[in-house]
Amino acid sequence: MSDSAYRDQPSALPPPASVGIPLAEVETPALLLDLDAFEFNLRSLNETLSGRKVKVRPHAKSHKCPEIARRQIAAGAIGICCQKTSEAEAFVRHGVTNILVANEVVGDYKIRRLAQLAKSAAMGVCVDNATNVRALELAMAEVNALLYVLVEVDVGTGRCGVQPGPQAVALARAVAASPHLRFAGIQAYHGAAQHLRSPQERADAIRSACDKVRTCVDGLTAAGLPPQIIAGAGTGTYLHEADSGLYNELQTGSYIFMDADYGRNLEADGKPVRTFRQSLFILSTVMSRPVGGRAVVDVGLKAHSVDSGMPGVADLEGARYLKASDEHGVLEYTSIEPRLGQKVKLIPGHCDPTVNLYDWLVCYRGDRVEDIWAISARGAFY
Amino acid sequence: MSDSAYRDQPSALPPPASVGIPLAEVETPALLLDLDAFEFNLRSLNETLSGRKVKVRPHAKSHKCPEIARRQIAAGAIGICCQKTSEAEAFVRHGVTNILVANEVVGDYKIRRLAQLAKSAAMGVCVDNATNVRALELAMAEVNALLYVLVEVDVGTGRCGVQPGPQAVALARAVAASPHLRFAGIQAYHGAAQHLRSPQERADAIRSACDKVRTCVDGLTAAGLPPQIIAGAGTGTYLHEADSGLYNELQTGSYIFMDADYGRNLEADGKPVRTFRQSLFILSTVMSRPVGGRAVVDVGLKAHSVDSGMPGVADLEGARYLKASDEHGVLEYTSIEPRLGQKVKLIPGHCDPTVNLYDWLVCYRGDRVEDIWAISARGAFY
Repeated sequence: MSDSAYRDQPSALPPPASVGIPLAEVETPALLLDLDAFEFNLRSLNETLSGRKVKVRPHAKSHKCPEIARRQIAAGAIGICCQKTSEAEAFVRHGVTNILVANEVVGDYKIRRLAQLAKSAAMGVCVDNATNVRALELAMAEVNALLYVLVEVDVGTGRCGVQPGPQAVALARAVAASPHLRFAGIQAYHGAAQHLRSPQERADAIRSACDKVRTCVDGLTAAGLPPQIIAGAGTGTYLHEADSGLYNELQTGSYIFMDADYGRNLEADGKPVRTFRQSLFILSTVMSRPVGGRAVVDVGLKAHSVDSGMPGVADLEGARYLKASDEHGVLEYTSIEPRLGQKVKLIPGHCDPTVNLYDWLVCYRGDRVEDIWAISARGAFY
Repeated sequence: MSDSAYRDQPSALPPPASVGIPLAEVETPALLLDLDAFEFNLRSLNETLSGRKVKVRPHAKSHKCPEIARRQIAAGAIGICCQKTSEAEAFVRHGVTNILVANEVVGDYKIRRLAQLAKSAAMGVCVDNATNVRALELAMAEVNALLYVLVEVDVGTGRCGVQPGPQAVALARAVAASPHLRFAGIQAYHGAAQHLRSPQERADAIRSACDKVRTCVDGLTAAGLPPQIIAGAGTGTYLHEADSGLYNELQTGSYIFMDADYGRNLEADGKPVRTFRQSLFILSTVMSRPVGGRAVVDVGLKAHSVDSGMPGVADLEGARYLKASDEHGVLEYTSIEPRLGQKVKLIPGHCDPTVNLYDWLVCYRGDRVEDIWAISARGAFY
């Protein structure tokens, strides 16, 4: 149907900054990327993995930004992961041609669009259900293209994925028997392990995941279907997967940004994680200073996600982000009194759903806006 | 600067439905509006206010949708409220010409844009700071237009707003002394009262707010500045403000939609509130059924806001939305086993930040999509 059948159209806001201006002149709320920290994180991932035989396929659900995907691939990544067909479409449109949808795709329309993508890009997908395998084969046969498929195994998160063992083998057989699907291996992401605070807890969780993965590998190998790809890992645990001798494709996503939640993870010395630096911030403005000790900023629930707690305050000593309402954040301060109109940088509690609220990423170095990147897959959740 | 200076552009997704299709064919996640319930809510607000001398200026921060604003005005509203300059811009662009920004606007660029709007629409704004009053006057003088101004008073929420009494009077004087600002009255919204569960608690909270408002009215009247407008009220308390003999402009927003949080408010008989019906839903798809008792839907943190708790499950008896991750929601079910691909309607925990995640509202009646409305002020948070 034509667009004219809808009442009105969505509006995209212009960027909150232009290249070259100082940070103090950026409109708020704005999503900021500290380019020095971002580039440090890109390098740090490679350096910590140096000498290990693993490939990196970063998860683009964290950033939804074509320019970041390009830079990750330029830094050595073999491609990216997405979670949704429409995210993958946005990245293919912007020149990314090697994408794993690290998730199940269910529903005829979504599957048909995935099949279309596979005609011009190397596409993979995860499955945890035989009915879904049949639907994928049908759609791929229609376009006469090939899709590689990972069987998702639940290694401890309790979300999607078959149980390790015979279920995984049976599903891999169903995939392998489908002429337009290629069984490629196992998706074994342990999401619940990423934010365990102590390094020992995270190591134990991945050791337990590896036991489940090994059960699958043994069963698949015995069935004549040895998995080529064993994929998973996140920013909290990726070195354990890299050292496991099992996982060979790492799907870290948040490492480029970090957030307040990841900032609470500890390293072996009991200090907060330092492998990656905080590069993602929300710029806010003090819009009210109603009484002493309280300031209100213009960043509320529509400008950050509180699912993992309130944001941190990056550059106002002694201040704490106390509570959020739709368009407001209440700061409590003790030492430095912020002035009306002052810009305050916040550290998002959880990067992924926060990034998804913004159309633009304002990239800066030092105090100057250096570039502006579109978050082109913002809202791409079909 | 020209658009070509940015890396890529934001993409707006096409609507997840077309007019005339059954709900079962709508792409997910989708934001649904039950038109029967929505129209009931529009009527119910008017019916409950019948005979009371109050005006209605609904808060458009809840819906961000021009078509809903038009229908609210057609139903008798005198205009709308917004929270942000860019929201107001979106509504003015779509023909709404009477807007109160029920919030402080701080920062030169935002104020200049507000001033521009006042040249073609009747615009109001709130203030709680004399420095801000001077900045507003300066900008309005530059465009030689008039802005009406409400002094925001903190009546119990502990967010923005001056303290009732001399502070409010002093600020009103500053406004009245500004040639391009017109002092019009008091903004006295008690946000913290809206979700008190018992009707007695809500009544008590508004009684306390009214004491503070009366202090202001007396002080302002004595100073020769009797307030014409006394504005405030939300969906949880609006009848108390309407009956107060003080408030004369009501700013209810959520009443058109309702959400799981408002659904926990009780009426005098101890039963959940019935004045308004749930009209807003999120349509999800069961994308995984990994083990008995657990189903995973494709609606996670990027498709609803969890700040007020998990969403309710509207149409799958015995099921509960247990936890959300970025793109997944885990349902626990006891009685009816959902099939893979089944569509499940969810009741958002909090309507405002959930609506802000979507570009389109899929409007249905019975089982059929009847219209598709753009959420044109989605993401308009500058």
